[in-house]
Amino acid sequence: MIRTAVLGAGRIGQVHASAVAASRLAQLVVVVDPFEEAAKSLAERIGCEAATDPLEVIARDDIDAVIIGTPTDTHVHLMLKAVEAGKAVLCEKPVDLDIAKVDEALRQLEDKDVPVMLAFNRRFDPSAAAMRQAIDAGEIGDVHQVVITSRDPGMPPEGYVQASGGIFRDMTIHDFDMARWLLGEEPTEVLATASRLVSPDLVEKYDDYDTVMVVMRTASGKQCHINNSRKAVYGYDQRMEVFGSNGMLLNDNLRPSTLRRYNQDQTEVHDPLLNFFLERYDDAFRAELEAFFGAVGSGKPVPVTPYDGRQALHLANCALESVRTGKVVKV
Amino acid sequence: MIRTAVLGAGRIGQVHASAVAASRLAQLVVVVDPFEEAAKSLAERIGCEAATDPLEVIARDDIDAVIIGTPTDTHVHLMLKAVEAGKAVLCEKPVDLDIAKVDEALRQLEDKDVPVMLAFNRRFDPSAAAMRQAIDAGEIGDVHQVVITSRDPGMPPEGYVQASGGIFRDMTIHDFDMARWLLGEEPTEVLATASRLVSPDLVEKYDDYDTVMVVMRTASGKQCHINNSRKAVYGYDQRMEVFGSNGMLLNDNLRPSTLRRYNQDQTEVHDPLLNFFLERYDDAFRAELEAFFGAVGSGKPVPVTPYDGRQALHLANCALESVRTGKVVKV
Amino acid sequence: MIRTAVLGAGRIGQVHASAVAASRLAQLVVVVDPFEEAAKSLAERIGCEAATDPLEVIARDDIDAVIIGTPTDTHVHLMLKAVEAGKAVLCEKPVDLDIAKVDEALRQLEDKDVPVMLAFNRRFDPSAAAMRQAIDAGEIGDVHQVVITSRDPGMPPEGYVQASGGIFRDMTIHDFDMARWLLGEEPTEVLATASRLVSPDLVEKYDDYDTVMVVMRTASGKQCHINNSRKAVYGYDQRMEVFGSNGMLLNDNLRPSTLRRYNQDQTEVHDPLLNFFLERYDDAFRAELEAFFGAVGSGKPVPVTPYDGRQALHLANCALESVRTGKVVKV
Amino acid sequence: MIRTAVLGAGRIGQVHASAVAASRLAQLVVVVDPFEEAAKSLAERIGCEAATDPLEVIARDDIDAVIIGTPTDTHVHLMLKAVEAGKAVLCEKPVDLDIAKVDEALRQLEDKDVPVMLAFNRRFDPSAAAMRQAIDAGEIGDVHQVVITSRDPGMPPEGYVQASGGIFRDMTIHDFDMARWLLGEEPTEVLATASRLVSPDLVEKYDDYDTVMVVMRTASGKQCHINNSRKAVYGYDQRMEVFGSNGMLLNDNLRPSTLRRYNQDQTEVHDPLLNFFLERYDDAFRAELEAFFGAVGSGKPVPVTPYDGRQALHLANCALESVRTGKVVKV
Repeated sequence: MIRTAVLGAGRIGQVHASAVAASRLAQLVVVVDPFEEAAKSLAERIGCEAATDPLEVIARDDIDAVIIGTPTDTHVHLMLKAVEAGKAVLCEKPVDLDIAKVDEALRQLEDKDVPVMLAFNRRFDPSAAAMRQAIDAGEIGDVHQVVITSRDPGMPPEGYVQASGGIFRDMTIHDFDMARWLLGEEPTEVLATASRLVSPDLVEKYDDYDTVMVVMRTASGKQCHINNSRKAVYGYDQRMEVFGSNGMLLNDNLRPSTLRRYNQDQTEVHDPLLNFFLERYDDAFRAELEAFFGAVGSGKPVPVTPYDGRQALHLANCALESVRTGKVVKV
Repeated sequence: MIRTAVLGAGRIGQVHASAVAASRLAQLVVVVDPFEEAAKSLAERIGCEAATDPLEVIARDDIDAVIIGTPTDTHVHLMLKAVEAGKAVLCEKPVDLDIAKVDEALRQLEDKDVPVMLAFNRRFDPSAAAMRQAIDAGEIGDVHQVVITSRDPGMPPEGYVQASGGIFRDMTIHDFDMARWLLGEEPTEVLATASRLVSPDLVEKYDDYDTVMVVMRTASGKQCHINNSRKAVYGYDQRMEVFGSNGMLLNDNLRPSTLRRYNQDQTEVHDPLLNFFLERYDDAFRAELEAFFGAVGSGKPVPVTPYDGRQALHLANCALESVRTGKVVKV
Repeated sequence: MIRTAVLGAGRIGQVHASAVAASRLAQLVVVVDPFEEAAKSLAERIGCEAATDPLEVIARDDIDAVIIGTPTDTHVHLMLKAVEAGKAVLCEKPVDLDIAKVDEALRQLEDKDVPVMLAFNRRFDPSAAAMRQAIDAGEIGDVHQVVITSRDPGMPPEGYVQASGGIFRDMTIHDFDMARWLLGEEPTEVLATASRLVSPDLVEKYDDYDTVMVVMRTASGKQCHINNSRKAVYGYDQRMEVFGSNGMLLNDNLRPSTLRRYNQDQTEVHDPLLNFFLERYDDAFRAELEAFFGAVGSGKPVPVTPYDGRQALHLANCALESVRTGKVVKV
Repeated sequence: MIRTAVLGAGRIGQVHASAVAASRLAQLVVVVDPFEEAAKSLAERIGCEAATDPLEVIARDDIDAVIIGTPTDTHVHLMLKAVEAGKAVLCEKPVDLDIAKVDEALRQLEDKDVPVMLAFNRRFDPSAAAMRQAIDAGEIGDVHQVVITSRDPGMPPEGYVQASGGIFRDMTIHDFDMARWLLGEEPTEVLATASRLVSPDLVEKYDDYDTVMVVMRTASGKQCHINNSRKAVYGYDQRMEVFGSNGMLLNDNLRPSTLRRYNQDQTEVHDPLLNFFLERYDDAFRAELEAFFGAVGSGKPVPVTPYDGRQALHLANCALESVRTGKVVKV
């Protein structure tokens, strides 16, 4: 049993804490949050210790692994401290919003022999995983085009927009990771366009956008399109398509039931989509943790690394540059 | 927290034990099985006590509720003992294969003020529940016809066939319960036909069938069709359709992912179905337990009663009689 | 080019006349209707002769084939006259509502060497034909169960109900033919139940029903369920399912477009169904004619015979008897 | 009845000739092809005159409308001649591959009061038309993003590649028209990337591509993505998605039947797609002609004009320039 601490008792920390508690591979020892009430409330609900100082917890001998779900600007610091202490780390994305800081962190991790995994949860969604397996099995031959649709159910609050680093670094970053993973090759060119259609005043205030389209190309000519919107009234829209020389793979959104309704005006009416990422990727969060604990336990490499986080961030920066310069950006 | 004992450490007992352990409303105290190894192994895995004598456990003061997942012929005895001891009971179906014994048990339960729920898990499937809610909300007007397709993925082993009470009492019984629940009215007439197509020799040996079709009618003229097969090579097929004066409701089977494949010969290829009831009704088993604990905790009536079990068994008997007499059987 | 006369300028006559005019195998010479205006109007629109006396037209030397779309009680008379005159015949179903009259007609046709085809159009629907081909190709192994859902979009007018011969002989008759065709074996037992739920007063007046369920069984134990309603508010509902030892085949309804709508409350909203048989079976009517002309031209047997019509009528009579006696009826 | 000549007896001329013959609004008088055999063979099959000189036919008094389905480089000449002669014109796309020639033609048409329609057939596909109507009805609010997937079933022969003008002007041009039509606003910026993945040697020989992705933006910030491939092994893939402030619209591909297959390994297996444009857009070709004849007959404006063809060609040129310069191209 891998003795685990969860740093951060916010939304994502709660998800991880519950998943650790339910895992057969790990034991949840302590949840940590500088806001004592939050730590205690979560600890009580799940049945573990509460603490307020992450560095103290990282230093504890009875902790094998640390899950970092704290604010973005603390990720690098905590990750490096945990690695120094020899703890396995699962860190929420992004590593940092500043790519120089990320590169410096990567440099410091280089000679460390401790598993550090980055939490790109979508790779662990059962449908995404099945898609990747089908590609690996050669079902569609060579990948030629990837199309990723990723739309949030609604604008985040202003404070979130202000701190997010912009739509490319906050939202599209997940899709950049998916793109790299599904293409099986690094994109070498990025083109992007961006608009303000959902909340023009709000996003303009922070020099941000709410509606974007990206096209990328790899050295061998594979192509990927990503489209994002901050507001899909019909729910959290998460679809992917991989087109290859011998076929195509598609996935679909999830709904709470399979019920279909027929009436005088409409047929095949399905439920609305599962609304947002906590519900939609519930299975993925659990599978992600199992993958992390499985790698830690077996000594095999973790499936997603901080370098993957670095590359996704870099693509986000390239996309933004393409929007600003009106040019293809070489990655 | 409702302190709970699970009687029976077989397949269904394991499902219930895990679900109790995960429930926020209950605490799993002990699992009981005369086969000590089974009880201990399950108890260790989940983290609770193990015991071998159900009557001793039923008598314990620190037990509030008992979940009965033992062999069918012990259900009535254990249910009555638990009720006498003032414990809330969730009992697996069927109450008993002998309707006289069931009726006698019902009589003895009549003046008892203890919650006793029968485990017709399918009512708690999210899609079935959504279907019933849509009917209640008047979405399809008056119900006119119900069509239930229910096919197992493969023949059970001979020992199971021998002891099951026959396909109507073992398999169709779930559909009889669904029929009553969706029709919202008691069937008053039953017609049935039965064949031996899957494993003719095996089922003939026990004077049983493997492929059946039933039609029922209520006093007001509502109709219901049920079809069953012991072997659907494409997996556990569980579909329902409710047709009404203002519309129709359909549900669909579940699959492990939403992946759809396109190739030279085929399009929209979906995954196989979730194979059998433990996977297919995983959500339903959990929701069923929550409904039970919710009723026990709140003092509200349980949503499925032993009488529901009695009625489903009676319809099974009527169907068998219809097959044997070639006549409509008045319920 | 097969020189063809269409008898009857009503709804179905118009369908046939247009299809003959468009066929590359045939030439539409004349449309016949005792109501001169109807014949003339149709003839003008399509560009052919009009006539009022079917027997005169049947006698013409420049007519090779006769399509009978007149009222049911004239079918046998016209069919026999056409056969006597050596004309190939495509006759609308039913042959007659009186099975004695049908049997007498069959006797008279016995030694005639003229192609006589019965117009069970649904066999020529592309999805039904693909289903039959898949069965023939062994894709699902042995057929075990057939489920046919067939619901009209609305009650017919009173005059139609009065003359139709009842729901089994008018509406279910199509499904009886489908059942025989898909089962690949004659049903030997029929059970049925019938209700008055859509227009109770109207159907009771004519001792008829509007909502029925049938179960049939063949000698080898294959089973078939049919359900009918006179009124599906969501449109003309025509679905079939064939379940076999190695798989299952399903078809679906048709819609005018593939558009799917997503909004705040609903997803995957499809168009209503094509409303009734003229639209729904548009392709089937054309394919049926091509099959008829193809057989006539090549001298091969026609794919549907008056005997098929006789059998479907007989099953309808058996179903009605089962409703009235509450017994399984041996076919 | 609009007396019509079809110029060109090739693949598309045959489609138009059949559709004219079947139309209730028009009469097919003559088909014209310099290759006499082709003209005669088509004329005989459909039942009309054959001719070899298009200019003679254009000059005939008994011709009201001319449908131009000849090689691209003759379009402008024949169109202008027909307009001079006062004939209504339906001209196949593209107007010409040289935009200067197109602009000159548009200038000459400016003061003519004769209906000239360009044959962008996809606008008349029932699902596309339903999509446009839903947008017009305000069902999805403001359009924010359009995604068009358009993949051919296989590489065209070398001769076609050589003469086509390149993938953007030959294939994407249809999607550029769809994009303008669905966006309801002119794109003002074009970004594109292009690869050689299907037949690298062949397309490189003609400085062409076989796999492309385009992103466009309108002045108000609406976005459109188009992806194309010359070879989708699963058939002719034609899908569109319109995402708006209040919902989303999707269409789907067409298949020859609705059959769905289930077996041990797969479920919901659908037929392959209708293979190519003649089958896929069969309904659209007929609806396009009816729209043309309807406009001609009523004196209302035609729904697609040569200017639409000019704009689509211009977008194709912009896309090619974007590929070559690596920059956003201002339209």
